[in-house]
Amino acid sequence: MLSSIPLSPEVSAGKRAVSRCDSLGVPPFSDTPAGLFRAYLSPAHAATLEQVGAWMRESGMSTRIDAAGNLIGHYDGLTPDAHVLLIGSHLDTVRDAGRYDGALGVMLGIEVVSFFHKQQKRFPFALEVIGFGDEEGSRFPVSMLTSRAVAGTLPALPAALHDAANVSLHDALHENHLDPARYTEAARPPGTVLAYLEAHIEQGPVLDTLGEATGIVTAIAAQHRYHVTITGEAGHAGTIPMPLRHDALAAAAEAILAVEQTAKDGPSDLVATVGQLELEPGAPNVVPGSVRLSIDVRAGSDAARDQGAAQICAQIETLANRRGVSLTIQRQHDLPATCCDPQLTALLARSARRINGSEPHFLVSGAGHDAMIMAALAPVCMVFIRCHKGISHNPAESVSAQDTEKAFEIMVDFIISFSEKNETEQEF
Amino acid sequence: MLSSIPLSPEVSAGKRAVSRCDSLGVPPFSDTPAGLFRAYLSPAHAATLEQVGAWMRESGMSTRIDAAGNLIGHYDGLTPDAHVLLIGSHLDTVRDAGRYDGALGVMLGIEVVSFFHKQQKRFPFALEVIGFGDEEGSRFPVSMLTSRAVAGTLPALPAALHDAANVSLHDALHENHLDPARYTEAARPPGTVLAYLEAHIEQGPVLDTLGEATGIVTAIAAQHRYHVTITGEAGHAGTIPMPLRHDALAAAAEAILAVEQTAKDGPSDLVATVGQLELEPGAPNVVPGSVRLSIDVRAGSDAARDQGAAQICAQIETLANRRGVSLTIQRQHDLPATCCDPQLTALLARSARRINGSEPHFLVSGAGHDAMIMAALAPVCMVFIRCHKGISHNPAESVSAQDTEKAFEIMVDFIISFSEKNETEQEF
Repeated sequence: MLSSIPLSPEVSAGKRAVSRCDSLGVPPFSDTPAGLFRAYLSPAHAATLEQVGAWMRESGMSTRIDAAGNLIGHYDGLTPDAHVLLIGSHLDTVRDAGRYDGALGVMLGIEVVSFFHKQQKRFPFALEVIGFGDEEGSRFPVSMLTSRAVAGTLPALPAALHDAANVSLHDALHENHLDPARYTEAARPPGTVLAYLEAHIEQGPVLDTLGEATGIVTAIAAQHRYHVTITGEAGHAGTIPMPLRHDALAAAAEAILAVEQTAKDGPSDLVATVGQLELEPGAPNVVPGSVRLSIDVRAGSDAARDQGAAQICAQIETLANRRGVSLTIQRQHDLPATCCDPQLTALLARSARRINGSEPHFLVSGAGHDAMIMAALAPVCMVFIRCHKGISHNPAESVSAQDTEKAFEIMVDFIISFSEKNETEQEF
Repeated sequence: MLSSIPLSPEVSAGKRAVSRCDSLGVPPFSDTPAGLFRAYLSPAHAATLEQVGAWMRESGMSTRIDAAGNLIGHYDGLTPDAHVLLIGSHLDTVRDAGRYDGALGVMLGIEVVSFFHKQQKRFPFALEVIGFGDEEGSRFPVSMLTSRAVAGTLPALPAALHDAANVSLHDALHENHLDPARYTEAARPPGTVLAYLEAHIEQGPVLDTLGEATGIVTAIAAQHRYHVTITGEAGHAGTIPMPLRHDALAAAAEAILAVEQTAKDGPSDLVATVGQLELEPGAPNVVPGSVRLSIDVRAGSDAARDQGAAQICAQIETLANRRGVSLTIQRQHDLPATCCDPQLTALLARSARRINGSEPHFLVSGAGHDAMIMAALAPVCMVFIRCHKGISHNPAESVSAQDTEKAFEIMVDFIISFSEKNETEQEF
């Protein structure tokens, strides 16, 4: 893809950011020849760090790889010890991924620095672009490992975790010349990061449906995940009259509809999903005896999520009692909502208003992002870029250069505004 | 088990039939040491034929194994060329089976002949007891193979079929000294079998719920089986607002409840079941994009089944349209109802009335049985024996000696009545 687009100085930042993502969509930047998969600490990841590092250096940054394998490009501020405004996202992908989830945010960071570098513009803070190594958790059974290392919220490295090929995280780090014992040294000292800005594709259909190029994220959704087991009585599909059945799947069906209806009836940012369902024995001629299913509940606030989840659980308990099936509901995940920093978000929205000439659309991110981890270290804000039909985690993932250019312009305007605001406030 | 129950001449027929089934529940009569599995043409099957054959001979029968591997015990009639009243069921089992499904009907046949043999009673017809080799289809992917061979409805042997260990039916027959080329010679000449009587555990909870030892089968249910595919749109469980979803599993949930409600609202012999369901992608954080499910619909008549199935299909089409998901419904099986012969069934009911001193309970068999195949060759009738809680195809399958004794007495009375009736009618 790279060779087919002239990367002359005249090419727009948005176009270049997109085309660079495209060029990273194939080997050596993918671990699989067909279908993009870039796993943390894999050969494709290493090749990507090399390539992206070169782009960072072309854009006026010095580069380093931190103790967790994150790539960091540094653009000096006015003083050598200036604090940092960090721009970033992740470079790893899911299997059979799209090319923009994560990578586009890193490329946009590079474009922003490149823009200021061409103008020889320096700020009272350094600009840094970070390409996180593991956000997706698609290699080891843990996610957001690298942003947790940077934010200082990783108490200990789960080095004994193994990937599907039985390689331990410990060994994978060594293969990449990283010392597992020093992993948590990736943590940034509190106070040294002034703000974290992340641009990311929406991974949902809201902006596309509204016809908006970009959106401003107010929060990353609170999430509950439950594992539910419904136990009825298995039996012969031909010999058990309907009134004598305790069909676990029919009970599960009612539960699935209760999950859907509760979310439909709730606030617009409440979503609830049954994404996994397994039944036993699972034969066409046997009444299902037990069903295990997952319930994922998310909302922009902990309170809205808790209310939705409580309603769902209550309805499932009621229907289980009525049907004479037994029930266990176990909460697996409990992630609180992460609020984007109100002041930074207002500043980012003002930039969006200026660039787009209209009131920005504010939305809650239902997906997790590195920003949600980084909020423990620094105030965070996020800009979303429309993706075609909301398709993500899929080779059909698609963003336009025009939309990406809008995000670029908003980010540039935001950084200038941030600088001006901080100068006024004499905060550094 | 056998050794713990004194099989003196005083032991009841019901008790002996049950204890013989128990003794057949372990090696060498099971192919698996823990959990009964007696597969067609397996070593356990061969050992079982030897043991059951010995019991047949003790009971006054000559024995042979037919071209399909069925064990047949013959008790002469008054004349050497007398036609046959055939009593039978199957000797194979599912995996991890109960001990009575099939085997009990064969043991009861032996008890009935033994009873008449002790009295030196001969009829104008021969009595034969048949232990079918394959009813369950638990070894090769085809069922009722041996009754189809006997009924003459097997056009050709599917000898190329392989079992899970990759042994062909052809080779399995050879291992048992049976000639695949002569398999269909097991067919009985039309007109030579006067009637087929099968006793079988109910495999359902109706008799247990009613407190009835036995029941009279009026028909073996008509069955439709459908494979349904619902295709919606997969997507991120966090990022797709509820109004923009096309959740295949939520649509499937509505379909499952439509299947259940239609059967509940229909005639009492209508049952409908979703026993199998698979979804994709099947992750807790992904809105399901597609679901495949099975629908099994049975009723005592083709008309009732057809009406129920049509209602179900119409409701699923409506909900799929409303939800904007696409749908395919494929019919996989279409088995017509098999009516038990009305005259034989009336005779059997009269015997039940005499023995139990009350009006018998008539029911439709939702499960398939050899009788349904044998109906192509001869008039058939069936007596069901209560099984505890309707549990079958399960090691917990349980029947009482008392109930089995009732079935035995009904069968004896039926044969005497049948003989008297036929003498009156001068039919042979």
